[in-house]
Amino acid sequence: VRTLDWSACGIRLIDQNRLPDEELFLMVREVDELVAHIQSLAVRGAMALGVAGALGMALAAVRAKERGEDLDAALDEAATKLSNSRPTAVNLSIGVENVARARREGAGVAELVEVALAMRDADIEANLAIGLRGAELLRGARRILTHCNAGALAGVEHGTALSVVMALQREQPLDVVYVCETRPLLQGVRLTAWELARGGVEHRVIVDAAAAGLMLGGEVDAVVVGADRIAANGDVANKVGSLSHALAAHRAGIPFVVAAPEDTIDAGTASGADIPIEYRSESEVLTFEGREIGPPKSKALNPAFDVTPADLVTAVVTQRRTILPATDQVAPALPHPDTTGVCPSTP
Amino acid sequence: VRTLDWSACGIRLIDQNRLPDEELFLMVREVDELVAHIQSLAVRGAMALGVAGALGMALAAVRAKERGEDLDAALDEAATKLSNSRPTAVNLSIGVENVARARREGAGVAELVEVALAMRDADIEANLAIGLRGAELLRGARRILTHCNAGALAGVEHGTALSVVMALQREQPLDVVYVCETRPLLQGVRLTAWELARGGVEHRVIVDAAAAGLMLGGEVDAVVVGADRIAANGDVANKVGSLSHALAAHRAGIPFVVAAPEDTIDAGTASGADIPIEYRSESEVLTFEGREIGPPKSKALNPAFDVTPADLVTAVVTQRRTILPATDQVAPALPHPDTTGVCPSTP
Repeated sequence: VRTLDWSACGIRLIDQNRLPDEELFLMVREVDELVAHIQSLAVRGAMALGVAGALGMALAAVRAKERGEDLDAALDEAATKLSNSRPTAVNLSIGVENVARARREGAGVAELVEVALAMRDADIEANLAIGLRGAELLRGARRILTHCNAGALAGVEHGTALSVVMALQREQPLDVVYVCETRPLLQGVRLTAWELARGGVEHRVIVDAAAAGLMLGGEVDAVVVGADRIAANGDVANKVGSLSHALAAHRAGIPFVVAAPEDTIDAGTASGADIPIEYRSESEVLTFEGREIGPPKSKALNPAFDVTPADLVTAVVTQRRTILPATDQVAPALPHPDTTGVCPSTP
Repeated sequence: VRTLDWSACGIRLIDQNRLPDEELFLMVREVDELVAHIQSLAVRGAMALGVAGALGMALAAVRAKERGEDLDAALDEAATKLSNSRPTAVNLSIGVENVARARREGAGVAELVEVALAMRDADIEANLAIGLRGAELLRGARRILTHCNAGALAGVEHGTALSVVMALQREQPLDVVYVCETRPLLQGVRLTAWELARGGVEHRVIVDAAAAGLMLGGEVDAVVVGADRIAANGDVANKVGSLSHALAAHRAGIPFVVAAPEDTIDAGTASGADIPIEYRSESEVLTFEGREIGPPKSKALNPAFDVTPADLVTAVVTQRRTILPATDQVAPALPHPDTTGVCPSTP
């Protein structure tokens, strides 16, 4: 499923908040609408956010031209709004910056749209490559554990962690994929389970807290997750809970593999300590489908991400290489040779 | 709050499935009703289950006498039903066995009730002692993380982990208690948060997966949890998720303390590998407040407990001693000097 695309009217995206109950595609005509969808997580996932940032800038350019507004002022405003909509996700800013840079280099509206579309196409290609590379690394693993949704729904197509899962599945049907439900927003049970069910992959949903017991009990061959940002030293910021799985995988002696495109590697971030962690609304923890689950006076703390130290990361698999953070240099990311659309955040 | 008690009519217990929305006390008149309440987790927690087992046997004895039925046959039947209602919880069987043994030694119905009431009283006293001992061990810790509910609601009064928290709080108000919500049944946010709010303790509810990030981020001084069973080598079975917290505490260099009565130590169980793990219904994972959260074809796996290896346990605090599993002998448990109601599972 192509979760995010460009059309004559604007940006077309699947509303992930409606899944798995219904497949609803939204047509986004204004940047403010896109910002709202990014914040509500209707569109989410590191790579999709990168492409969304670029397409959002293209949208701003097209609308400014139609309305006869100043192009540079419109792009500046859109860049600020889009970059601030999710502070932890580095890809969002990269997508925005790719289009902004093209404009600084003199591109017109049509060329800005081309830059955004090139990012979309590079994303699809990169995700396929990540899957093949990850499957090569994990050949023989038949029981995989994953967290959150690093699937097609987190990108434009294919995904990262689930691209690895699907590549393994094509070689030989997997015994089981353990899908961590991923509280508080349940992307695992809502999105990943939906993708695996759609793809005919044998899977079991578990609560996040059950992962460690399964790993130490010998029930898991490998953990594969995505990443929201990878620091220059190999520390990985990903959905809250990833760190627990890395600790358990380390203790169990099984690989903890991070599947992510090169541009998730942020050479400008020295280590995990420099990655800002987004704290989201308390109500995501304290309510479910609008109903309060705790006592009325209790408060919550809701970090959306955590940081896995590099020494717990067996490998980072990108579309261009397999990095072993314990021994390999992680940053800078390798430039993508085929397109100007994807490039390292620090040239 | 006294969560479980004996009255002229039968067993009185607070329905924990109604909390935190309402305080409803149930009057249980038959063993089958008690079994149903144990299985639905209306009554839960290692210690409460021990007392519930004993009171259930007392109830069977009283009813058999009233109906002119054979006392031993009624007790045998009740023992089987009660012991099988939650296979992982060792205390349940201990409570049952205490009354059964008294009968084998010739006790009449009134004496059997006395044995059960002595267990209740010993439980209350033990929990207070556990709290004081734990607070002594953790003096100076102001930011505590706990999982599930090892509070008054898990015992008859006071609890274990929360007895430690309340003892620390009496010395000096705590900065914060991080309450893991404890999926799938949310005992943390429903019960522990309710107890802490009631006790005026500053607290924040977090998703289970957020605990590791807080610990490695330096936000937690100590982890305190209860236990469902402690093997002779110090391995600890507790609510699923405890293992993750122990791994994170170990990495963060903070204490992981298990607060539990002596009779949770099962000398008959050599190590964690010998502890049967209860797998509960898939629907607990796949539904939330009665609503399906995943795709209709997806299945779940729902282990209720996990096992924390002894080397990750900083200390086990009981009513009688502070055990450091790395260096101290854990089993056999110390006999309780004050009562015949609480005793080690293997004499």
